[in-house]
Amino acid sequence: MKMNAIVAGVGMTKFGKHLERGLKSIGSEAVVAALADAGLSQDDLQAAWVGNAAAGLVTGQECIRGQVILRSIGLGRLPVINVENACASGSTAVNQAAAMVSAGLYDCVLALGVEKLYHEDKRKSFSAFSGAVDVEFVQEMMAALQQSAGAGGGSAGASGAGEKRSMFMDIYAAATRAHMDRYGTTAEQLAMVTAKNSLHGSMNPRAQFRDRMTVEEVLAAPMIAEPLTRPMCSPIGDGAAAVILVSEKKAREMGITKPVRIVSSVLRSGWDHGYDDPSSGELSASEVYAEAGVGPEDLQLVELHDASSFGEIMAYEYLGLCPKGQGGKLVADGVTTLGGRLPVNTSGGLLRKGHPVGATGAAQVVEITEQLQGRSGERQVAGARVGLAQNGGGNLGVDVAAMCITVLKV
Amino acid sequence: MKMNAIVAGVGMTKFGKHLERGLKSIGSEAVVAALADAGLSQDDLQAAWVGNAAAGLVTGQECIRGQVILRSIGLGRLPVINVENACASGSTAVNQAAAMVSAGLYDCVLALGVEKLYHEDKRKSFSAFSGAVDVEFVQEMMAALQQSAGAGGGSAGASGAGEKRSMFMDIYAAATRAHMDRYGTTAEQLAMVTAKNSLHGSMNPRAQFRDRMTVEEVLAAPMIAEPLTRPMCSPIGDGAAAVILVSEKKAREMGITKPVRIVSSVLRSGWDHGYDDPSSGELSASEVYAEAGVGPEDLQLVELHDASSFGEIMAYEYLGLCPKGQGGKLVADGVTTLGGRLPVNTSGGLLRKGHPVGATGAAQVVEITEQLQGRSGERQVAGARVGLAQNGGGNLGVDVAAMCITVLKV
Repeated sequence: MKMNAIVAGVGMTKFGKHLERGLKSIGSEAVVAALADAGLSQDDLQAAWVGNAAAGLVTGQECIRGQVILRSIGLGRLPVINVENACASGSTAVNQAAAMVSAGLYDCVLALGVEKLYHEDKRKSFSAFSGAVDVEFVQEMMAALQQSAGAGGGSAGASGAGEKRSMFMDIYAAATRAHMDRYGTTAEQLAMVTAKNSLHGSMNPRAQFRDRMTVEEVLAAPMIAEPLTRPMCSPIGDGAAAVILVSEKKAREMGITKPVRIVSSVLRSGWDHGYDDPSSGELSASEVYAEAGVGPEDLQLVELHDASSFGEIMAYEYLGLCPKGQGGKLVADGVTTLGGRLPVNTSGGLLRKGHPVGATGAAQVVEITEQLQGRSGERQVAGARVGLAQNGGGNLGVDVAAMCITVLKV
Repeated sequence: MKMNAIVAGVGMTKFGKHLERGLKSIGSEAVVAALADAGLSQDDLQAAWVGNAAAGLVTGQECIRGQVILRSIGLGRLPVINVENACASGSTAVNQAAAMVSAGLYDCVLALGVEKLYHEDKRKSFSAFSGAVDVEFVQEMMAALQQSAGAGGGSAGASGAGEKRSMFMDIYAAATRAHMDRYGTTAEQLAMVTAKNSLHGSMNPRAQFRDRMTVEEVLAAPMIAEPLTRPMCSPIGDGAAAVILVSEKKAREMGITKPVRIVSSVLRSGWDHGYDDPSSGELSASEVYAEAGVGPEDLQLVELHDASSFGEIMAYEYLGLCPKGQGGKLVADGVTTLGGRLPVNTSGGLLRKGHPVGATGAAQVVEITEQLQGRSGERQVAGARVGLAQNGGGNLGVDVAAMCITVLKV
């Protein structure tokens, strides 16, 4: 969808393990920071979209997550819409908020992504991922497997939570092996993605991991699902990111002289496509470029959904940053490293900045906004004028459940 | 918000106990019915908002509820936004879908409300309500209570689920007693609400309860929370309701000659207001009337959130259907009974049609649409031209968490 929503302010927490803090503490920190960044008061906010994926399963806070967070800073009366799209919940909040502002329905709104995954009971943390697949289908499949094995004992339910975490990485690993077979992508190239993002993350004070890793260290780490080692898989984490979007009129009133704009944002669901059909990623990419009036060659930076290092290589390809099959080569050539032609995941990405599920999509917009405003410190991309954020979520089989791609310009 | 979205089709399941059916089966039945009612194909849908409150806690299906339901009928690629606002999740889906169509962003969209509360494990059903309050606050309160009581044994967590169901009715009961003290509202008047809605529900083939109850029977039923007896409290249930909304342009192409329109819909969060401040209900009512260009005197029917029979009396007052304190008298005078001046809850309401939480707000729009189209059979309100739907959800203390009021006209 073609859009025109101006980013008036951004704020986020450090991503990581905040065992002692709750959803309210984390979420409100990001909102207060974004308001301060915008120079606005909370009474300026006319509506809020709040993305969260797993608080229902992890903390028990379902239903009214946004209201509970906003009330903790005394904010009420405004419309609050709690949105969910698994790992794409944060970008869904931004997409909806931007659409409403672009359509002239509001002048000043909040998009918040927030997640609290660390829990004293680790099973609760892992249960967060169990709801992001077709649960009825998985249960039926499990029952059928148990029946065909003739096994009586052992419940799939209670022990399943931990397994489902690796199920996601199993899906990634199978796709990785197919890509290696077909295009000659190597384990070294996968490790280069993590090494690059660790370099970027080392310069980001809000990243969960700030140590730099070499390709050799990444390859030598424990194997999660062949060929993906642990640092090739994003960690779980807690965190929040907030984006305040305003209309052209409000931006003028605020005296914003060099506005960062969301010019296009596309949200799509996955579908049961054949091998030669376009995936939701390809469909969304071509749509978002057309509506933004730019192509991949016009971008100066990209934040994308590297839930695994192979996820980044796949995204290079469906975003058109390189020809199909050449994603491994793109990172190996240094194109996507800071200083290269098109730096990708300057924040450190999901792999190193961290991946508090519902916060991730909003945090990508925070990174791109700060880059376009030239305030990213040592990881600044010089002269960046156009950036793209890509966030995917959930799994429906051959495709993700939700895909959101957004283009920002200054 | 002033709106102009035309209801092209509606569909819903029977509300009740569907122990053998899952979220996909229930949700897709409503969608297929609404498409058939509109004479549209699923490929006509450009976006979908799906409201659900508790599948994460009851069935484990979090994150991508809408995609999983729509995929079961082969529908993908379109944007799907999963929204949540406790008992107001369904109306939130309608509100967002209507806003987007009214703003010209889409020509044909789906709003679906769906809920699956019955579970073989009853604790799971009751856990649905535990997420609709400020969970951190409740946990802190429980911990403080246990500490001050010096009690060591017994975990509040595991046993708390059942108690929290009655906590909602305790909140209602305390407000009811205050109203009785202040305004002389009687237990008989509360029972009259249920008796009236049971009469209406007896004429609704999709209602969960179809038996008629007398005032005496309602009063003689088991007490849930003084003065609320069981039939004065809405039941839990399973069900789904779908609404297809189209633009003026699309309605013309479809040859719709007598369109039912959403002309105004207001969504607001609750706030920590003082006794003399307007509640979210009062704020929303005055806004929705102003934007629809109508007043309470222009309505011919109302569907409102009778989660308890006192909830209906309260809503009479903040919707301006009678002066403050006169809600009990309004039902006693027969004004809100079919055949009276302003029939309320002709569907049977939450008390008798049932209350599958996330479906309720969408089901209210189904009832009003069918009434305005003159196809409500023996419960038809003759010559109805303007109807209002009011749906509230969650609790934040002195106010609900979410309030949504929508006006429809033919």
